[in-house]
Amino acid sequence: MRLFLLPASFSKNSSSIELRGKDYNYLVNALRMKTGQKIMGRDRDGGLWDLEITAIGRSSCVLSVRPAEKLSAVTDNIPDRAPLKPIVLYQCLPKGRKADDIIKKATEAGVRDIVLVRSRNCVASLEGKEESRLSRYDAIVTEAIQQSGSVVPTKVEGVIDIRDIPEDFEKRSGGLERLGLVLHQTRLKEDQADLFACVRGFEGITAIVVGPEGGLEEEECLSLMDCGFRAVLLKTNILRCETASIYAIGAIQTILESDCQ
Amino acid sequence: MRLFLLPASFSKNSSSIELRGKDYNYLVNALRMKTGQKIMGRDRDGGLWDLEITAIGRSSCVLSVRPAEKLSAVTDNIPDRAPLKPIVLYQCLPKGRKADDIIKKATEAGVRDIVLVRSRNCVASLEGKEESRLSRYDAIVTEAIQQSGSVVPTKVEGVIDIRDIPEDFEKRSGGLERLGLVLHQTRLKEDQADLFACVRGFEGITAIVVGPEGGLEEEECLSLMDCGFRAVLLKTNILRCETASIYAIGAIQTILESDCQ
Repeated sequence: MRLFLLPASFSKNSSSIELRGKDYNYLVNALRMKTGQKIMGRDRDGGLWDLEITAIGRSSCVLSVRPAEKLSAVTDNIPDRAPLKPIVLYQCLPKGRKADDIIKKATEAGVRDIVLVRSRNCVASLEGKEESRLSRYDAIVTEAIQQSGSVVPTKVEGVIDIRDIPEDFEKRSGGLERLGLVLHQTRLKEDQADLFACVRGFEGITAIVVGPEGGLEEEECLSLMDCGFRAVLLKTNILRCETASIYAIGAIQTILESDCQ
Repeated sequence: MRLFLLPASFSKNSSSIELRGKDYNYLVNALRMKTGQKIMGRDRDGGLWDLEITAIGRSSCVLSVRPAEKLSAVTDNIPDRAPLKPIVLYQCLPKGRKADDIIKKATEAGVRDIVLVRSRNCVASLEGKEESRLSRYDAIVTEAIQQSGSVVPTKVEGVIDIRDIPEDFEKRSGGLERLGLVLHQTRLKEDQADLFACVRGFEGITAIVVGPEGGLEEEECLSLMDCGFRAVLLKTNILRCETASIYAIGAIQTILESDCQ
């Protein structure tokens, strides 16, 4: 189903909203919506709204806005479900456009926070372009939220140093029980945990640390493990970082969200 | 680790092989390998070989070839592991370059067979260009196998009609117990299974059917279910098809390969 992300200017007290520019194009030209058609909206705080197009002009359209109880209202038949358990993706900066792909897929899957991380083997850096890059990522997130109908207000942040992950994760946990996982694709001296065994039945907030192209250094893993993170060995081949992140998100979310433990 | 895919011309009786053209470029120019350096090789049947560069010329290089017992030999520290359980991905044809991304990621993860499928909502078609497209996919597979060190001889085949999936899957199963899964993102009239519950502890061969952009029609799901396939509702947002495939592969393979059930 489609979910329309309301502009930051949207006021929760208003009963209608006029849209121009990109938002107008998206609804009228991309989705080809007609007067009387409905779509689900989400405000910047994750609140849900029933939207109905009441008028379409040359360069603007007007929508009526009513608070929505839950997703089921005007969606195309998505089962009601409990909100997804919170996941934080700590993604060490990959090269070039790979980050776009990672952010898009992680957002679709409802990852709550995507935090970009600087680690030893990062070739890429956002120095000097952090602001412009993060605003590009915001645009990718917005589009992915609309396509996937995610009700999770995914945010992309960073860049932080890998040593600051434990403190950052504690800040984000809001007092929930924390499970920190470090994906490592080669055998460590220390034992590595079985992903399935770690995640199964867990009710709190989960962090996933994914290395850059060159992988994580063993010391980087070990110092995260000293802070209570668990190193996980994926039982598959060596994956590129852009594959590893969505592969692991699929595995972890599926086990987290399963009713039958 | 790197795994070099030996050319189809490679004979298992030979103790050395001379490489030219693309293979020469890959080893000498891309990997910058020097005389005396070793790399793991895989033949087209999935057999493993220890390779050592014995001579490098202007346009060709010579490698010595010895059968390898197991991966550990010259790899950069990949844990020995049991071979991955066989997975067949039935991917309904997506638009444009999305298939490249899906095939690359599925190959990295060690999916054994990738079968391209024609279904009701497929916009894309390979009519007339099947041969050229499949040879491009072979090149993508080869590169992904080398990057990921996969020992699974992934093959891309098709295009078959969605109605022919059950028969095709039976042919590929080689007598193994079969688990057929259809990913469907909206609620069906019939009950949908929990992915975790379906896959957990399964020892046979698994098929994953992933729809095209427009998704699968309910009848398409139901007729697969009549043939023993199980419809699975991913407990996440609506994923684009190129996200759904690797997300599901990550989930299914992680549960299949876990030691602790």
